[in-house]
Amino acid sequence: MKRIANLQDHEDAARAVLDDGAWAYFSGGAADEITLRRNPKAWQQWSLAPRVLQNLRGGHTHCQLLGQTWPFPLLVAPMALQCWAHPDGEAAMALAAASQQCGMVLSHQTSTDLHTVAQLALKDPERGPLWFQLYAHGDRGALLDLIQQVETAGYEALVLTVDAPVSGARDRERRHAHSRPAHIRAVHAQAAASGAGLCQGLADSAPTWDDVAWLQSHTRLPILLKGVTHPLDAKQAASLGLGGLIVSNHGGRMLDTMPATADLLPRVADEVQGQMALLVDGGIRRGTDIFKALALGADAVLVGRPCIYGLAHAGAQGVAHVLRLLRDEFEIALALSGCATSQAITRQHLWASTP
Amino acid sequence: MKRIANLQDHEDAARAVLDDGAWAYFSGGAADEITLRRNPKAWQQWSLAPRVLQNLRGGHTHCQLLGQTWPFPLLVAPMALQCWAHPDGEAAMALAAASQQCGMVLSHQTSTDLHTVAQLALKDPERGPLWFQLYAHGDRGALLDLIQQVETAGYEALVLTVDAPVSGARDRERRHAHSRPAHIRAVHAQAAASGAGLCQGLADSAPTWDDVAWLQSHTRLPILLKGVTHPLDAKQAASLGLGGLIVSNHGGRMLDTMPATADLLPRVADEVQGQMALLVDGGIRRGTDIFKALALGADAVLVGRPCIYGLAHAGAQGVAHVLRLLRDEFEIALALSGCATSQAITRQHLWASTP
Amino acid sequence: MKRIANLQDHEDAARAVLDDGAWAYFSGGAADEITLRRNPKAWQQWSLAPRVLQNLRGGHTHCQLLGQTWPFPLLVAPMALQCWAHPDGEAAMALAAASQQCGMVLSHQTSTDLHTVAQLALKDPERGPLWFQLYAHGDRGALLDLIQQVETAGYEALVLTVDAPVSGARDRERRHAHSRPAHIRAVHAQAAASGAGLCQGLADSAPTWDDVAWLQSHTRLPILLKGVTHPLDAKQAASLGLGGLIVSNHGGRMLDTMPATADLLPRVADEVQGQMALLVDGGIRRGTDIFKALALGADAVLVGRPCIYGLAHAGAQGVAHVLRLLRDEFEIALALSGCATSQAITRQHLWASTP
Amino acid sequence: MKRIANLQDHEDAARAVLDDGAWAYFSGGAADEITLRRNPKAWQQWSLAPRVLQNLRGGHTHCQLLGQTWPFPLLVAPMALQCWAHPDGEAAMALAAASQQCGMVLSHQTSTDLHTVAQLALKDPERGPLWFQLYAHGDRGALLDLIQQVETAGYEALVLTVDAPVSGARDRERRHAHSRPAHIRAVHAQAAASGAGLCQGLADSAPTWDDVAWLQSHTRLPILLKGVTHPLDAKQAASLGLGGLIVSNHGGRMLDTMPATADLLPRVADEVQGQMALLVDGGIRRGTDIFKALALGADAVLVGRPCIYGLAHAGAQGVAHVLRLLRDEFEIALALSGCATSQAITRQHLWASTP
Repeated sequence: MKRIANLQDHEDAARAVLDDGAWAYFSGGAADEITLRRNPKAWQQWSLAPRVLQNLRGGHTHCQLLGQTWPFPLLVAPMALQCWAHPDGEAAMALAAASQQCGMVLSHQTSTDLHTVAQLALKDPERGPLWFQLYAHGDRGALLDLIQQVETAGYEALVLTVDAPVSGARDRERRHAHSRPAHIRAVHAQAAASGAGLCQGLADSAPTWDDVAWLQSHTRLPILLKGVTHPLDAKQAASLGLGGLIVSNHGGRMLDTMPATADLLPRVADEVQGQMALLVDGGIRRGTDIFKALALGADAVLVGRPCIYGLAHAGAQGVAHVLRLLRDEFEIALALSGCATSQAITRQHLWASTP
Repeated sequence: MKRIANLQDHEDAARAVLDDGAWAYFSGGAADEITLRRNPKAWQQWSLAPRVLQNLRGGHTHCQLLGQTWPFPLLVAPMALQCWAHPDGEAAMALAAASQQCGMVLSHQTSTDLHTVAQLALKDPERGPLWFQLYAHGDRGALLDLIQQVETAGYEALVLTVDAPVSGARDRERRHAHSRPAHIRAVHAQAAASGAGLCQGLADSAPTWDDVAWLQSHTRLPILLKGVTHPLDAKQAASLGLGGLIVSNHGGRMLDTMPATADLLPRVADEVQGQMALLVDGGIRRGTDIFKALALGADAVLVGRPCIYGLAHAGAQGVAHVLRLLRDEFEIALALSGCATSQAITRQHLWASTP
Repeated sequence: MKRIANLQDHEDAARAVLDDGAWAYFSGGAADEITLRRNPKAWQQWSLAPRVLQNLRGGHTHCQLLGQTWPFPLLVAPMALQCWAHPDGEAAMALAAASQQCGMVLSHQTSTDLHTVAQLALKDPERGPLWFQLYAHGDRGALLDLIQQVETAGYEALVLTVDAPVSGARDRERRHAHSRPAHIRAVHAQAAASGAGLCQGLADSAPTWDDVAWLQSHTRLPILLKGVTHPLDAKQAASLGLGGLIVSNHGGRMLDTMPATADLLPRVADEVQGQMALLVDGGIRRGTDIFKALALGADAVLVGRPCIYGLAHAGAQGVAHVLRLLRDEFEIALALSGCATSQAITRQHLWASTP
Repeated sequence: MKRIANLQDHEDAARAVLDDGAWAYFSGGAADEITLRRNPKAWQQWSLAPRVLQNLRGGHTHCQLLGQTWPFPLLVAPMALQCWAHPDGEAAMALAAASQQCGMVLSHQTSTDLHTVAQLALKDPERGPLWFQLYAHGDRGALLDLIQQVETAGYEALVLTVDAPVSGARDRERRHAHSRPAHIRAVHAQAAASGAGLCQGLADSAPTWDDVAWLQSHTRLPILLKGVTHPLDAKQAASLGLGGLIVSNHGGRMLDTMPATADLLPRVADEVQGQMALLVDGGIRRGTDIFKALALGADAVLVGRPCIYGLAHAGAQGVAHVLRLLRDEFEIALALSGCATSQAITRQHLWASTP
């Protein structure tokens, strides 16, 4: 891992080892990939407003999520079919996350059994949270069965994806259709519905607010909605007593020309006002980006593609290095901004507009 | 048509088959082509504001135009001399449009007889609207004769172009003057006036508001004005009881440095307030662009160059694929924005400014 | 002059024939050339707001300047040492300007005798205005002698340059110092002062408002100030009863990071309010740019480098073609904007901001 | 030094002679180098608003700092390990600065003895100020010992760096770790603390406002804080009766995505209101940049990397040429803006926004 100094270096290293199909699948976005490009750029465009000569003794990076204290405000985002990036797949991802005191959200479309992942993720006492992400298009019976397995395995929250009633138009991925090896598959996901009407009927089976209420009544786990970006949707979620929200545009993979999440987060945060856990993903590539997410109201962040890139070229060790870089950079951002802890970060540590 | 995943791919394929003269003619714009570039970019810059967990059952893409319901809010824009792009020209265009439930506006400068086109366009019961576009520089007698043919042939509206009193300064086209094969010609157009004064007298014969009133009194067809971009002109059009407006900058081919139509549309829509049909063209390359046009007040859109590109490299099949891509992308945009139908789209589905 | 369709083509042709020293001298600007690049770009960024279906009969391009009517609102800007660009120098420039019904401002640093130029410029009855540009650093006696020659020769106004108390820092030019052939020289200019103090004392001899008053009392010609860009300076000029102002940043050759003249003009125009003639130069490359200058309050424009480029590669014929292109494009801009004459152009023909 | 016309040319010349490690060390910035790039660009984006026909007789460039008059408002910024750029290091830098009537701030991490530098810097009667920059992480006893040497040697002020409680994440530098020759070392700096906690405990030893008060009570020299960018920190500094502030983002080397200093300066200046000396560094590459800094409220500026670049390729002579270019360009900027002296510069000599 020589000469690798930041997450872009990991991305370059991954590009060199992945074939074109896998690269298109993991790195690609919807349509013209405008939202994909907006995500990292928007974090960069928020300007930091550091304070000097503050007392930094006893600093730490702890965060609070769903009533518990965790070492570091970062979880690996749910991503499908990680064994396509590296044979060790989700198992390596879970080990690396725990080793760096970060959390993990396992994807509904995991290519590794959820029990295997849970055992590896939970054994480290210094670990971060372990959550499970769900699509809810399918049959309710099968869904309940899956939720029971998830609860039993020790997952601590359900993350319901709400921004994907149908698939996005991913041109790059489509140009490499059928390039996925047959043995790489989603071991817990159901086949999607198919029929007449809007988007071949797929939209007909998409979850609605009613399905969220049904889900709440059938699990003891807290539920977070992933993909909420509109303040009115955040308001409705708050009224349902949900566990939290993840501000996300699905990494730019669903609806192109959505704004960057760095620009959506403060609007949702204004609505949420601390009533629920608030997380964000999309384009986070630097410790300063994590700092900014917290300044804009997030309790923690999720990081996706960079972890896949670390995994692709160097397995668990690669992921661990990605997360270590982010931890180090976040600590530096804290200190250089004059904040001893994550809790000291405020909206005033960013300039409202480029001064 | 392998590996073609979007309209840009069709453009690339067309570039490969068209000679420099035809390419300059169809793809070129006025002067520095600033408006030409602004058009697609402006659609991209409007940011989508999707809602989640909406009920999408029974979704469809129907639209209302001039008192009728049509399957899909898209018409092929009027473009001259389509036989220069492909020998099948306007005939192929009409067949492809109807096959994809899209409408067509035949150009006054069609290189195929208007009756031939009408017969092909009207035979499909699932078709979209069929309109005829007019310049009105010439002799009134000849114009009345043409209108009578148009009515007889079954065209359902007249589209009067009002943004072209003289020709634009198309540098690229001028560099390839005289490259058009002799057999490609406008079969229904009169020769333009020529004399002294502003722009060699051409401006003297340009239509005025008086000519619009005269035209209204000499046809039973509804009249739409194409090229209206100023709210005051929209106001005047509304006072005349016209059928509709098409917000257009002539695809960037007339007056360079006009704004993009995506930026002009909402101003015109504020004036029109549903009193007339409102359409827009210019730079629409994605289903999300159509979604945005409807959010900004349009009832339907016109798409020009992409259809020519599909035609150029693959005839009717190419055009059909272009239109199919736009339909699929529009359905996805509807579903991912939380809208079951075109009518559910509102101004609130766009962010007023980049949030 | 085959394949030349616009002024950029003329620039490219000039680059091909001029040596590096002459190219640096004529095309270069001050420091990082930020203002040089800003000038043309700012015209492009103003967006046109055309009106449709207007009556364009009897259109023309006449303009009023200093109480007289001229055929076209364009003068060739004063530029030094034109014989360095082409042996025919200022003589060819004057002939070409008159042939295209455009005016000319001869530079104090002309490389051709002012009488020769006047004779060529004045013989065409359809010509534009003929003015003489002055620096006023030098000895008053010599200056009075020059002014007397200028009056006798038939020049119709004096243009006093006020934005050049010292020379600009032209890096490109400095890298090619001493490349000018010995026979190319300013035939009417005095050597500049040199001594101690700010800019080696050059600033000490720069003209002040007092010198303007002195100049007014020693000539019967109207005086225009060239290089005024601040509303307060325009106010002072108006109070002195001067003939007019030329909004100019010296083509980006003096003080880098000044705004583009297209952005300065409306501020000066607000102050001038028609009390004096108002002209503008800098970056005008299109007929639409001339249209915009008039919409923003100018009575006429000056064009510099493009004329030098036409001259460089094709002598008088090249300049005439440059001016012809601008005339044709301006006529088209008038017609497509719905204006029959220059006087019909208003501030409302531009969008205040990108709509 | 042929063909060198501006500071960019010096940078290019330095790049050609420095090895990759030294180049990364001197030219690199933190993380994605966004702040590094923002610094020079922000000066460029402020637009000058010159006045014409002003009386410029008796112009000069004097400035006031800490109660004294100096010839020119420019100091060489403190930079570590200058012997790595050129064997003559800080000695050559001091000589060149004095020869051009500019000041110098010697870095705490100087690679040349502070007494040697002081002797060279102070011998020229036309010299600028000589200051010493301090980090204050270390042991107080050692610090007091150093301050006594600094006072004895004749330094006229202490510059306490407050924006570096920990090191920045400099990726480029990290990729070339261990490339520094063993004989290049900081001759007066202590080793940094290392231990547990935030940034390995480094943050624990960072100076606080209490340490500033302590420092004030242990030196007779005026103290300036370097790295203050927030108005509230400026307010606190003013309340302590400090000598001055240097608005700085450490040349983009500490906390990436901080704003450019050209954008921070006016906010700090509004707070300081002339109560203390106010200086700025970061991205100053032109005489117009110095003019703008003064217009925005600075009393003087510091220039860093360009001096290192001059030093690297041509020793003291290179630095002198860099400073000479800045002096000449600043004089030109004064004259062309209509200001006879630095004191004549006002906020009104800049446009508030691009007009």
